[in-house]
Amino acid sequence: VAGRSGSSAATTAIADATRTIGLFQALLSERAEVSGKRLAIEALATYSRLHGEALERFLDLLVERFAPDTERIDRAIDAYRAQPGNGTLTELQLAVESPREELFRRLNVAPLATGALIDLRRKVRETMKEHPDRAGIDRDLAHLFRSWFNRGFLVLQQIDWHSSAVVLEKLIAYEAVHQIRDWHDLRRRLQDDRRCYAFFHPALPDEPLIFVEVALTRGMSGRVQPLLDADAPVADVRRANSAIFYSITNCQAGLQGISFGNSLLKQVVEDLGRDLPGIRIFASLSPMPGFSRWLRTESTLVNLSLELRQYLQTMDAPDSAAAPAPAALKPEILRLGARYLLFAKDQRRPVDSVARFHLANGARAERLNWMADASDQGLRQSLGLMVNYRYIVADLERNHEAFIRDGRIAASRQLQMIAGTAQRRPNDPRQP
Amino acid sequence: VAGRSGSSAATTAIADATRTIGLFQALLSERAEVSGKRLAIEALATYSRLHGEALERFLDLLVERFAPDTERIDRAIDAYRAQPGNGTLTELQLAVESPREELFRRLNVAPLATGALIDLRRKVRETMKEHPDRAGIDRDLAHLFRSWFNRGFLVLQQIDWHSSAVVLEKLIAYEAVHQIRDWHDLRRRLQDDRRCYAFFHPALPDEPLIFVEVALTRGMSGRVQPLLDADAPVADVRRANSAIFYSITNCQAGLQGISFGNSLLKQVVEDLGRDLPGIRIFASLSPMPGFSRWLRTESTLVNLSLELRQYLQTMDAPDSAAAPAPAALKPEILRLGARYLLFAKDQRRPVDSVARFHLANGARAERLNWMADASDQGLRQSLGLMVNYRYIVADLERNHEAFIRDGRIAASRQLQMIAGTAQRRPNDPRQP
Amino acid sequence: VAGRSGSSAATTAIADATRTIGLFQALLSERAEVSGKRLAIEALATYSRLHGEALERFLDLLVERFAPDTERIDRAIDAYRAQPGNGTLTELQLAVESPREELFRRLNVAPLATGALIDLRRKVRETMKEHPDRAGIDRDLAHLFRSWFNRGFLVLQQIDWHSSAVVLEKLIAYEAVHQIRDWHDLRRRLQDDRRCYAFFHPALPDEPLIFVEVALTRGMSGRVQPLLDADAPVADVRRANSAIFYSITNCQAGLQGISFGNSLLKQVVEDLGRDLPGIRIFASLSPMPGFSRWLRTESTLVNLSLELRQYLQTMDAPDSAAAPAPAALKPEILRLGARYLLFAKDQRRPVDSVARFHLANGARAERLNWMADASDQGLRQSLGLMVNYRYIVADLERNHEAFIRDGRIAASRQLQMIAGTAQRRPNDPRQP
Amino acid sequence: VAGRSGSSAATTAIADATRTIGLFQALLSERAEVSGKRLAIEALATYSRLHGEALERFLDLLVERFAPDTERIDRAIDAYRAQPGNGTLTELQLAVESPREELFRRLNVAPLATGALIDLRRKVRETMKEHPDRAGIDRDLAHLFRSWFNRGFLVLQQIDWHSSAVVLEKLIAYEAVHQIRDWHDLRRRLQDDRRCYAFFHPALPDEPLIFVEVALTRGMSGRVQPLLDADAPVADVRRANSAIFYSITNCQAGLQGISFGNSLLKQVVEDLGRDLPGIRIFASLSPMPGFSRWLRTESTLVNLSLELRQYLQTMDAPDSAAAPAPAALKPEILRLGARYLLFAKDQRRPVDSVARFHLANGARAERLNWMADASDQGLRQSLGLMVNYRYIVADLERNHEAFIRDGRIAASRQLQMIAGTAQRRPNDPRQP
Repeated sequence: VAGRSGSSAATTAIADATRTIGLFQALLSERAEVSGKRLAIEALATYSRLHGEALERFLDLLVERFAPDTERIDRAIDAYRAQPGNGTLTELQLAVESPREELFRRLNVAPLATGALIDLRRKVRETMKEHPDRAGIDRDLAHLFRSWFNRGFLVLQQIDWHSSAVVLEKLIAYEAVHQIRDWHDLRRRLQDDRRCYAFFHPALPDEPLIFVEVALTRGMSGRVQPLLDADAPVADVRRANSAIFYSITNCQAGLQGISFGNSLLKQVVEDLGRDLPGIRIFASLSPMPGFSRWLRTESTLVNLSLELRQYLQTMDAPDSAAAPAPAALKPEILRLGARYLLFAKDQRRPVDSVARFHLANGARAERLNWMADASDQGLRQSLGLMVNYRYIVADLERNHEAFIRDGRIAASRQLQMIAGTAQRRPNDPRQP
Repeated sequence: VAGRSGSSAATTAIADATRTIGLFQALLSERAEVSGKRLAIEALATYSRLHGEALERFLDLLVERFAPDTERIDRAIDAYRAQPGNGTLTELQLAVESPREELFRRLNVAPLATGALIDLRRKVRETMKEHPDRAGIDRDLAHLFRSWFNRGFLVLQQIDWHSSAVVLEKLIAYEAVHQIRDWHDLRRRLQDDRRCYAFFHPALPDEPLIFVEVALTRGMSGRVQPLLDADAPVADVRRANSAIFYSITNCQAGLQGISFGNSLLKQVVEDLGRDLPGIRIFASLSPMPGFSRWLRTESTLVNLSLELRQYLQTMDAPDSAAAPAPAALKPEILRLGARYLLFAKDQRRPVDSVARFHLANGARAERLNWMADASDQGLRQSLGLMVNYRYIVADLERNHEAFIRDGRIAASRQLQMIAGTAQRRPNDPRQP
Repeated sequence: VAGRSGSSAATTAIADATRTIGLFQALLSERAEVSGKRLAIEALATYSRLHGEALERFLDLLVERFAPDTERIDRAIDAYRAQPGNGTLTELQLAVESPREELFRRLNVAPLATGALIDLRRKVRETMKEHPDRAGIDRDLAHLFRSWFNRGFLVLQQIDWHSSAVVLEKLIAYEAVHQIRDWHDLRRRLQDDRRCYAFFHPALPDEPLIFVEVALTRGMSGRVQPLLDADAPVADVRRANSAIFYSITNCQAGLQGISFGNSLLKQVVEDLGRDLPGIRIFASLSPMPGFSRWLRTESTLVNLSLELRQYLQTMDAPDSAAAPAPAALKPEILRLGARYLLFAKDQRRPVDSVARFHLANGARAERLNWMADASDQGLRQSLGLMVNYRYIVADLERNHEAFIRDGRIAASRQLQMIAGTAQRRPNDPRQP
Repeated sequence: VAGRSGSSAATTAIADATRTIGLFQALLSERAEVSGKRLAIEALATYSRLHGEALERFLDLLVERFAPDTERIDRAIDAYRAQPGNGTLTELQLAVESPREELFRRLNVAPLATGALIDLRRKVRETMKEHPDRAGIDRDLAHLFRSWFNRGFLVLQQIDWHSSAVVLEKLIAYEAVHQIRDWHDLRRRLQDDRRCYAFFHPALPDEPLIFVEVALTRGMSGRVQPLLDADAPVADVRRANSAIFYSITNCQAGLQGISFGNSLLKQVVEDLGRDLPGIRIFASLSPMPGFSRWLRTESTLVNLSLELRQYLQTMDAPDSAAAPAPAALKPEILRLGARYLLFAKDQRRPVDSVARFHLANGARAERLNWMADASDQGLRQSLGLMVNYRYIVADLERNHEAFIRDGRIAASRQLQMIAGTAQRRPNDPRQP
C-alpha cells in the first residue's frame, strides 16, 4: 500500500510540475502578449506551491524544455561561417540565447516575481552539485540579474531605528557575521554612534540586498566585543574619528556572483566622509576565517613552537571550551598571523576569503589585533586575531590594480615588519 | 584657410571621439571593478559633450571597437561542433555576446546614465538609414532595455495638477496626438473629469515613458474637439459611465520596440474599473491616419462617387483650408471608412497603424464617428472620421489571438453592417 | 556638614530655577521678536536640565511670575463697568489672559518644544494635589492644547509592521489595557486579521496620541485571551464580519482632558466600513473595572447569595491565586453584571468609567460575556466578565443625546432582560 | 415687481444666513460632542454657499449671537472683586472668552475648514471699516490663529520646479511685489541661481503662507530688472557670494498680523548659509514705496532744486510715461533718498513701510541704488531708487533692540555720509 501511495504521490508531483511548465510555456506563446500579466501571475502561483519531489521534477523540466533550439543554432553557425557579418552574427546571437531568459523576463511582470526568481536561483544552486545540468538555469538567471541589479538601479539607504520593522527584522534574520540576538541588540546597533547602510532594488523595497554595519569610534577599533555589547554606553559622535565596518552581510543567496560589496563600501566611505568631516579613518574590523586551519596545515605546523602546538591540541579536545592563548604566545601568533595574511596563497590569491574581498577592493591590510574576537568562534577560527583593512580613497585604485595584476598585497609597514619583510625604521611614529 | 580650419576641426572631432572611446574601453578593463563609478561618470560626461562630426566619429568607433571577438567565436563554434553540450554552448553564448552590452551596463552606474543611453539609441536610430552598420548598437541597447524596462519594474502613476512641474512640462513637450498648447490647456486635461496615467521607471523618476489621456464622459464620446476644449465646463464624474482614451503618447524614441502601450491600457482599465465602478465602457477615440491616403489609392479611387472625388480634389488645391465634406456624402464616407477599417490590409495586417495597435491589444472596432475630428488635420487625414476601439476585458484575449493567428478583426455588428458584411437584424437596439 | 551640602544643593537648585525663569521672562520681552528662536531653544534646554528640587522651585516660580497683572485687571474691570462694550471687553479679555499662554506659544518655536510642554503638564498634574496653586499652569496649557491639538490638525494613521520601530516601540511602552509583552507579541497584533490606528499631530510625528487595537473576527468576539494569543493562527480577513476594539490607550498623560477617543473610534468605524465592506459589526470588548468593587459595597453585598459571598471571600485571601467562579454562579453573576451596567450610578452617571466612555460615545451595551477575561486581573476586577459595547452608526447620535441629557443607557434587549427590566419576547432570535 | 423680487431675495438671504447660524449654534451644543464632525461639515458647506446679502446678514448674526454672556461676566467680576484669587480669576477668564473661539475650534474639524476660516477673516477685515462691530470676529480669529499658526508648527519648504503645479500656480497668483507674468517667467525664478522658500502649515499643504524669492549673485545686486528677466542666462551658483531677497509676499490676507516674515528670512539666511558656504552677503533689494509721496510733502518740497521739482511735475502730467530722472539730479536724489530712509518718521517710526519691516528684523540699511527699478512703477514710486537692507546675523539682535527701544536706525557709514550725518573717512574702501 505504501508503495502505491508513494507512486501516487510521485504521479501527483509529476502532474504539478508538468502543469507549471505548461504555464511557463504558455508565457512564451503569442497569447502572452496581451494576457501576459494574468498568465505570469498564474504561473508564479502554481510554481510557488511546488515542493519536494514536484519541485525537483519541475527543475528537471526547466532544464529540458527551454534549451535553445539546436537545429536553429546549427543553421545559424552555417550561415555565419558562410558569410561572417552583422546579419549572420545577430542571428547566431538570437539562436544561442536561452529561451529561459525571455521566460524569466515575462514572469517578472507578476507582482513579487523578482523575489521569487532570486529564490529560484538559490534553490537551483543548492542542488547544482547533484544536478550539474541545472547550471544553465543558474547561468541564465545570473545573466539576467546582472542587468536587473545593475548598480545604477540600486538605492543606498541608511537603516536606523526609524526604518520599518519589516526591514529591521530582516537584519536580524540575515546578519551572518556577528549574530543579532534580539530587538534590544538590534536597537543598540542603530544608535547614534553606529550606522547601517544597505542597497535596495526598487522592485524589492523591503529586501536589503547587502548591508554593512559601522561603528563610529575614537581611534581605529581593534576589539569587536565592545562594539557588539548591547548595553555599551552610546559615544559622542562628534569625538569620533574612525568609521569601522565590523560586519558586511550579503542577504540574498540567489544573487551570488552579482557583487555589491565593493560599491557599497565605496559609497559609504563617500557619504560618511561628506556628512561627518571628523571621520578620517575608514577601516574594517575583519575576521581571519582560515587562520586556524592554515596553522594546522602540514607545511606550517612543523615551524610552530611546541607551546603553540600544545595550545592548538587543547582546543581540539572534545567538548572543551576555547580558551585564550597564553600571553607568552602573542609574538609568535602575531607573526604567524601577519605571514598568513601576506604569504598564504592559493594560485597567487590569498587563501583567506575575507582578505581577498578587501584587498580586491583596494584596501590595505593595516593592523593585526590581539584578542580582538574573544568569542569561542573567534578563538577557534583565528586564535582571537582580527584585522583592520583600511580604505584610503586615494590609494584604492592603485592597490586594486597591483593586487589584480600582480597579486601584490598592500600592507602597512607595521604588518610587514611583524611578518619579517620590512626593517624597523628608527623613529617610525606608527610603530607600537 | 577654411580648409585648414575645417581639417583642424575634423582633427579635434576625431580627438574628442577617440578620447571618449578610450574611456569606454577603460570601463571594460579590470581597473573598472574598483573605479567603475568614477570612470563611468567621466566617460558619460565626455560623451555628452560630443556633437556633430565628433559624435558621428564616436558612433563609428562604437561600431568598430566593441564588436565580439571573431577568433573567439570561431574557437567556440569549433568546440561546440566537436562536442555540443552545456559547456560549449555557454562558451558560444559568451563569445557572441556583444561587449557593448557589458559596456552599457557599466556606464549605467553613473547618475543619469539610463536616460543618456536611451538618448544614444535615439541618435543611433535617426542615423541608421545612412549607417546601417550601427544596427548593432541599436540591437545591443534594445536587448538591454528589454531587461531594464521590464514591465515588472515600471510604476504606473496618475498625473494630475498635484504632480511636479518637471513632469507636467514633459507632457506638454511630448504629447504627439493632440498638441497641448500651454499650461492652461494642460490644466484642463488634468481636471476632475479627466485622467492621465503614465509609466515611469524608478531610475528616471521625472521621465514618463508613455502616457494616456482619458476623458470620463456620459456616453461613449464620438467627437474629439469638445474633449480638447480648454474652456469646457468640468463634468460631474459621478454621472460618467465611459472612459475615453483620447490620446496615447510614447515619449521616448530611444525605447522604440520596447512596447508599453498594451500594458498601460490594460492597467488603466483595471484601475479605473476598480476606483470608479460607474464606468462601464472603456474605449479609445482614435484617428484613422491612413484613411485619406487609402481613398486616393488607385484601386479605391475608381469606386468613389463623382462627388466624393471632387471633394477630395478641392482639398488638394494649394493653400485651401480643409472644409467638411457635404452631408450628402456621409453614408458613402462612413461605408468607405468601415471598409477601410475591416478590409484595407497589407500582408494580412490592417494598413492603419492605429487600428493595428488597438486590434492587437484585443480591442474591438466599435463605432465610426462622423465629423469627429473637425480640425484641418482631421479633415485631411480622415475626412473628419474617428473610431472608437472598445476594450471589453472578457474579450481581449480571444480577440487578440484571433487577430494575431488569423488576422481576424473584431468589429461591432453595426460596423460590419455599414461595411456591408452583416445584415441588419430586426430590433437591434445598438443600431443608430 | 550634610546640612551645609544640602543647603548648597538647595542654593544651586534655586539658582538653576531662577536662571530658567529668567530666560522664560526674556522670551516675553521685545527682544524675543527677533531672537525668539534662539531664546526659546536656550530656555527649553535649560529647563530640561532641571530635576528634583530645582524643578519644584521652577514650578513655584512659574506660578508666581507669570500671573496676570492684577492692577491691569482692575482698571479693565472699571472701564468695562463704566461702559460695557466691544472695546472695554477686549481690554478685559487681554487683561485676564494668562501671560503664560503667550510664553508657551513662544517656547513652542524651539524644536521638540511641543512634546516638552506636554510633558510639563504631566509633571504639573502629578504634583497638583500637593500644590493646588499649580492648577493655573495646568489650565493654561490645557487651554492652549485645545487649540493646538484640534481634531482638524490630527492625522489618523494605520500602524502596521511596515511602521517605523520608533513608533512601534511606543506601542509596547504605552499599551495600558492588555500589556504587549515583546516584539513577538506586537507583531501578532499587527498581522492581517488585526488593525491598529492612532492619531498623530504633525509636530510630533513619532508620538501616537491615542491608539486603538482592533481584531477582525467572524462573530462578535466575547473572549479576550484568544485575541491576545501571540501564537494564534492568522484568520482569513475575507471571512470576518466584526471589528472588535479590544484595547484603547491614551498615550500622553499631559493631554488629559483633550479627548480624542470618540473621534478616533468614529473615524476607524468609518474607514474600516469603507475598506472592508464585509465588516458589519463594530464593537468593543471592554473590561468592567468597577464591578468587583461594586459587588462589595454594602448595599449590594446584602443581596448576594451565600455562595457568591463565599467566592468573593476566597479571592480576598492573602496570596491566593484568583480562580474562576463556579459555573453554578453564572446566572447570578451575569444578572448582577447587567444590573451593575444599567443601574450602578453616581450622580446620574454610571460608576463604571469604561461604560461612561462608550455610552457617551453613543455606543450601546450589547452583550455580557462569561469568562471573557480569565486572567488574574480579569477575575479580580470583574469575576471574568467583559462587555461588548456596540457602535451602530445610525444610533450613535440619538444614544449620545439621551445619555447626556437624561442619563438614559442604551442597552440590547438581551441585556435588559438579564437585568430583569425587559420581558423575554417569544421567538426573539437574539436570545441565547 | 423688482421690489417684491428684491424683498424676496432679501428674505431668502435672511433665511440662508439664519440657517447657517443655526448650524453654528448646534456645533456649540452638547450634541456636537459625538456628531461634531458631521455638523461641522454641514455648517461649513452651508456657510460657503453664502454670498452678497446673505453673507452680510450672516456676519451680522455672527457678531450678535456669539458674544460672551454679559450676565455671567458681571457675576464673575463680582466674585473676583469679592475675593481675588485663582478660582475667581479662572471663572472670569472663562466668562470673557468669546464663544466664537470654541465655535471656530469645532468648525475646524471639517476638512478644509482651516482655509475657510482664514478666508472668513479676510472677508471680515475687508468690511470692518463699514462694520466696526465685526472687530470682535477679527480679534477672535486672530487670537486663535496665533495659536494655530505658531512658528513651531510651520514647515519651511524650498519651492522649485519639482514642486507641485498646485503650489506653483499659487506663486503666480500671490506674488505681490514683482508680478510673475506666466509659467515661463516662474520657471526662470526657480532655476539654479534662484531660490524660493515658503512657510506651510500642515493643515494647508498646498497653500504657501508667505514666500521669499532669492537671487544668488556675484556681488550685492543693485538693479532689479536683470533679476526679473525671464530670459537671462543662468549664472554659475558656485561663483555667487550674495543672496538677494528681491521679493517677499504674504499670501493670506486672513492671516494679517500673524507675522512670519522675520522668521522666514532668518531661517533662509541660516539654511542658505549652511548649504552654500560661499554665500557671505545676505541682503534684500527693496522698494521705497513712500519716497515719491514724501518728496511732494510740503515740508520737503521747499528744499528741492528747481530741476527736481520740474522733473516731478512732468511725471504728474496726465498720460505721460515715466522717464528716468536726468543724470545731473543723481546726487540730489540720492541725498534725499538717504535722508528719507534715515529721518522721515511718523511717531518715531520710519514712514516707509518696507523700511519698518527690515529694520525691525534687525537688518541694516546698506546701500541706495540709482536706477535700480527702471519700471514705470519704480520711477513713479521712488524715482527708480531701491535699497539693500543687509542681514548680518551677529548684528540682528542688537539692531532690533536699538530700533524698537530707541527708534535708532542701523545704516551703513556710506548711507550716513550721503545723508550728511557722517564724515567721509580718508581711504574708506566702501565708498563709490
